[in-house]
Amino acid sequence: MKIVLIGAHGAIGSAVAAELGQRHQIIPVSRSRGDYQADMADLDSVRALLHSIDDIDAVVATAGAVHFGPLTEMTPEQIGVGLREKLMGQVNLVLTAQQVLKDGGSITLTSGILSSDPIRYGSAASLVNGGLDSFVRAAAIELPRGLRINIVSPNLLQESVPDYGDYFPGFDPVPAARVAKAYAKSVEGAQTGQIYTVW
Amino acid sequence: MKIVLIGAHGAIGSAVAAELGQRHQIIPVSRSRGDYQADMADLDSVRALLHSIDDIDAVVATAGAVHFGPLTEMTPEQIGVGLREKLMGQVNLVLTAQQVLKDGGSITLTSGILSSDPIRYGSAASLVNGGLDSFVRAAAIELPRGLRINIVSPNLLQESVPDYGDYFPGFDPVPAARVAKAYAKSVEGAQTGQIYTVW
Repeated sequence: MKIVLIGAHGAIGSAVAAELGQRHQIIPVSRSRGDYQADMADLDSVRALLHSIDDIDAVVATAGAVHFGPLTEMTPEQIGVGLREKLMGQVNLVLTAQQVLKDGGSITLTSGILSSDPIRYGSAASLVNGGLDSFVRAAAIELPRGLRINIVSPNLLQESVPDYGDYFPGFDPVPAARVAKAYAKSVEGAQTGQIYTVW
Repeated sequence: MKIVLIGAHGAIGSAVAAELGQRHQIIPVSRSRGDYQADMADLDSVRALLHSIDDIDAVVATAGAVHFGPLTEMTPEQIGVGLREKLMGQVNLVLTAQQVLKDGGSITLTSGILSSDPIRYGSAASLVNGGLDSFVRAAAIELPRGLRINIVSPNLLQESVPDYGDYFPGFDPVPAARVAKAYAKSVEGAQTGQIYTVW
């Protein structure tokens, strides 16, 4: 399969590339490096990217920033970062991919455990992750041409513990390599409308 | 209690006013009529509203538009309607209410069944409702001064069947008066971080 992987250089993205790259052609996309660059928050950028590649079997998104900070000081602008980058970034990918994917192709997005299991300072991430989970469940029943869509909802990564572990007291972190298997299930399997929790 | 009710003239809002108005002072707010007007999508408008009223015990939101339409033709701008009106409108209310509510006061928002049980043309509503549910779960653990927050997730209303029933095949509609009881549970009860499904 030809798989477009957005966020290919992140902790999850590189694990997904390692997992799926064993069996498929991976086209790595990042915001600012490599042959394929795109800003997911910009629909035109997403369109230009996906229309520049022929015969795509799958698109996978593992990118998207969200602001973390105390709710008592949170501003609409800070929440807007996650809405624009992680949420609408991935929605833009769906809106475009449904037009360009090969029949029967798949879309795999990324949310996260905070949708259901919140932490201090994580309210914007919870909002974005919950919105994405529900959007995927809905999009699955409308996608044309046998297209499928699923979303992977990872726990805190073991690889992220040095940087973020203190914000996730009591969470049991998972290795990125195990999270990557959920993307393989989505891309290589036959399910649609699923939220794959790796918690 | 003094309860600020935003969206007081809608199908749910008027049922909430009837239910809670039996025992409490209701301050009805709408976008364009009555003594108290506010545009929830505008943080400054929400601030001006809530700072103009003293000693608020509870704020309840039952307002917020969302675009319905086929996913295959959906644009980011159409999804933006729901993000701005129903989602950030209610988030703006939380960001402001946490500063002005009396100690131990409550916030009650509104999402909807499409978060979990999608329909054709409802992907933007699913997104917004899922985001709100997760945001409320997260906000509950950070609110200061004993403030509480819950969200009511109604099914299709019986009152809305003439207008929207055809979009909800097989859904078992609920009377607005029954939905209103969930708002009473939130405002008059002691729970926080709950999603009250009236399905």
